[in-house]
Amino acid sequence: MYAARNLTWVNVEKLTEPLCGRFRPGHFRGVTTVCAKLFNIIAADVAYFGQKDAQQSLVIKRMVADLNMPLEIIVCPTVREPDGLAVSSRNQYLTDPQRKDAACIYKSLQKCRQLIDAGATDTQKITNEMLKVINQVSSIEIEYLSIVDAKTLQAVEHITGTILVAIAVRIGTVRLIDNILVDLRK
Amino acid sequence: MYAARNLTWVNVEKLTEPLCGRFRPGHFRGVTTVCAKLFNIIAADVAYFGQKDAQQSLVIKRMVADLNMPLEIIVCPTVREPDGLAVSSRNQYLTDPQRKDAACIYKSLQKCRQLIDAGATDTQKITNEMLKVINQVSSIEIEYLSIVDAKTLQAVEHITGTILVAIAVRIGTVRLIDNILVDLRK
Repeated sequence: MYAARNLTWVNVEKLTEPLCGRFRPGHFRGVTTVCAKLFNIIAADVAYFGQKDAQQSLVIKRMVADLNMPLEIIVCPTVREPDGLAVSSRNQYLTDPQRKDAACIYKSLQKCRQLIDAGATDTQKITNEMLKVINQVSSIEIEYLSIVDAKTLQAVEHITGTILVAIAVRIGTVRLIDNILVDLRK
Repeated sequence: MYAARNLTWVNVEKLTEPLCGRFRPGHFRGVTTVCAKLFNIIAADVAYFGQKDAQQSLVIKRMVADLNMPLEIIVCPTVREPDGLAVSSRNQYLTDPQRKDAACIYKSLQKCRQLIDAGATDTQKITNEMLKVINQVSSIEIEYLSIVDAKTLQAVEHITGTILVAIAVRIGTVRLIDNILVDLRK
């Protein structure tokens, strides 16, 4: 996709800084640039992204809006395995015990939703309860576990409006991410 | 052209750093971003830029190539007044004496071409001769006077291949730029 002499980058500020942006420097600049190239090459009318990559979807939508790109971005719901693990090409790299452990990622997100449904609004307390779920499994190392505004991706102290609960972990050498959107106005 | 919440910028590296880039921080990032927006909004097939803004033309061409934008960039020759001054909307802001003095910008570029035609290749010596032409006029303050590779815009010590001789000056409050391309292979 890139000429050796490529000098041009599309960068979306702010939205690319938190969450995965903190742990993968330059990652989103690569994603936006290669998507801009691809959209131009195929003259895309519509492009589909997955909600599992929530930050990526938001960044691409912002790029398309900001640069007036003539296509529509549709974000598709996360597809899950029977135990809740988000479907990902990376899941195949998990050993059988790791694969079982990975189910606790979504369990922690379900815990979060239960707490919010029960009236919890303090994100620190909610996060602590989520950590308890994940820490039941020793193979998982948490990269981040954040409750953020769904539009700005900035951390919130108290839950209001629409929030994104996002998590990134490592199990062995495999990096997995997942998230849920919670809309308190519904 | 910009939403208040705009977060996306298109940036062309390296080519935007020398010449006008040194004196106008952020200028080319604004040019590339707003051109990307405009090209998308009107679904441009062709866009015409002027050779007078040589760096801008090169940067836009690079952006279009690097991002696979589906349009053609055509660079049009500089139009000149009878005394050689490059036509620019800014010329109207010159007083009559300043307008007369401004003719020495192109005179210095002509001097450069004469020296090269006569076999000169040392850019420092050529630059010194050009400065003598401009310094005959006290109202002109030089911002830069550079002899660079026409493709990379990097300064060259000895003239070879195709070079860009570029100049930016201030006359009073008016900033004027001009340039010539010299192709030694012709």
